[in-house]
This record gives sequence, structure tokens and C-alpha cells, in this order.
Amino acid sequence: MTCDLCQPTPYEILWHDDFCRVVLLNDADYPAYCRVELIAHIKEMSDLDAQNQHRLMQAVFAVEAAMREVVNPEKINLASLGNKTPHLHWHIIPRFADDKHFPNSHWGEVVRGEPRNDALQANIHALSGHAKLMLIDKIKTTIEKL
Amino acid sequence: MTCDLCQPTPYEILWHDDFCRVVLLNDADYPAYCRVELIAHIKEMSDLDAQNQHRLMQAVFAVEAAMREVVNPEKINLASLGNKTPHLHWHIIPRFADDKHFPNSHWGEVVRGEPRNDALQANIHALSGHAKLMLIDKIKTTIEKL
Repeated sequence: MTCDLCQPTPYEILWHDDFCRVVLLNDADYPAYCRVELIAHIKEMSDLDAQNQHRLMQAVFAVEAAMREVVNPEKINLASLGNKTPHLHWHIIPRFADDKHFPNSHWGEVVRGEPRNDALQANIHALSGHAKLMLIDKIKTTIEKL
Repeated sequence: MTCDLCQPTPYEILWHDDFCRVVLLNDADYPAYCRVELIAHIKEMSDLDAQNQHRLMQAVFAVEAAMREVVNPEKINLASLGNKTPHLHWHIIPRFADDKHFPNSHWGEVVRGEPRNDALQANIHALSGHAKLMLIDKIKTTIEKL
């Protein structure tokens, strides 16, 4: 079976090296939602050696730190599931107290139909322009100084 | 508000030190489902320094490795959400191809009512006895040799 993550990504690449890439999913409900995707087709974190586990998590935490600074979410959600696509990728999801699913997982039950508070609206707007550039810049400088 | 994870845990502690603990949730659908819980009340991974991020993830990956060896799941799911309990804790969930939610997130839509294949039944059984001791032993030896 062809692996989606082994194909060229349909998403905007915010940062990449030869080990992993950071993509912006353009999720309508979670505008700053990013994924960190390993380039190699590897299934589980425990299939990586300790050095590469650390390298991948540093990228994840760099995105988390950049996201907190730029969109200031109520909570960051991190997850590596891969049940449908068993190729290592980390979800980094900025959550807001009145987003569509909060406090549930964003894979869980929807709890409100029109989640958009002012902050989230502002983020949606911002991410179409200046703040997206800020996010890219923060990710880049955070990862590259590691 | 009182934080549940700052209270004595109601779950069986498989391993602990002064930094984190590994607890077995005794989830009926996911018998080997564990959490790694930070002892300190800290909200996000990016609130930890790099050394403690690494230390916590090493515990998570040690549990993952032990779980793979003992219950041999189709996929491991890792997540740090904390929307309801903003105190760092990692979910380590062994997934099977015909468990209740697979391939969805276990927070997502239920896709089958009676998920229990032979392997899962075997795991449920095993985790009540010998395999639970094995899991505890593997976690302990893996974490303590880090």
C-alpha cells in the first residue's frame, strides 16, 4: 500500500531538513495546527535510536514553543497515532477554551458548533498573513539553534 | 481547582521515581493502556527544560518499548493532551486492528461493539497475571538502565 507520507506533501512546508518536515494543515477549525513528519518511513518512536528520538522530539517541542508564542493557545495537544498512516508524524494542535471540541480531544465529540471566539478569529486572520510568517520564523530559528 | 494528578493516584503504579510515575489505567477496552505522569504540576512540554523534556520522553519510550514486547500491538498511540487536567501526562495506548476504535483515535468514533480478537483477549487475560509482571519488569529495567 502506498504511504501518503512517503509522497510529496499537499500541505505547506513551514520548515524542513533531511530528517523531518513541519507542515501547516490549514485545518478550518484549528488554523495553526501543524504536523512534524519524519522523512523516513518508520512506524514507531521505539524503532528510532535514542539520538533520533531526541532529534524528532526537539522539532516537535520547537513547534510547540513557536505556536505558544504566536497564537497563545489555552493548551497544546501533542499526539503520535499513525493508525491509518503508520509513518511517524506528530500532531501539534493549539487548543482554545471555546474551540469546537474543547475540552475533548479534537478527535472526540464536537461540543459546540460555532467555536470561534475573538482570539480564535484573530488567529485565523493572523495566520493568513503576518502571524504565519512569524510562526515560520520562530520554528526556523528555534529548530536551527538546537 | 484541585488537580487530580496532584492527588495520590487511584491507579496501580508500575514504576516511579521522584520525577514521574507509570500507571496502569485498567481500561476495559485497552488493558495495557498506561500513562506516564510527571510528579510536578507543570502544564506543557515547553515549560520543561531540555533535560527534563528528554527525561520524560525517555520514560514514555521505555513504556512503549516494554508494551510492544509484552502485548505486541498493531500500533502504539502516544498523546499528551491535558485539556481537562493541565498537568503533564502521556498516554501510551496499545492499539489492535480490531479494537473498539481502530483505526480511529481511541477518543474518536467507536467502529465495532465487540472488539475482542484472540490477541486482545489473550492480552486481557495475560495482563491479569504473568504479562503484567513482565510489563512491570520490562519498564523497570528499561527505564533504570537509561
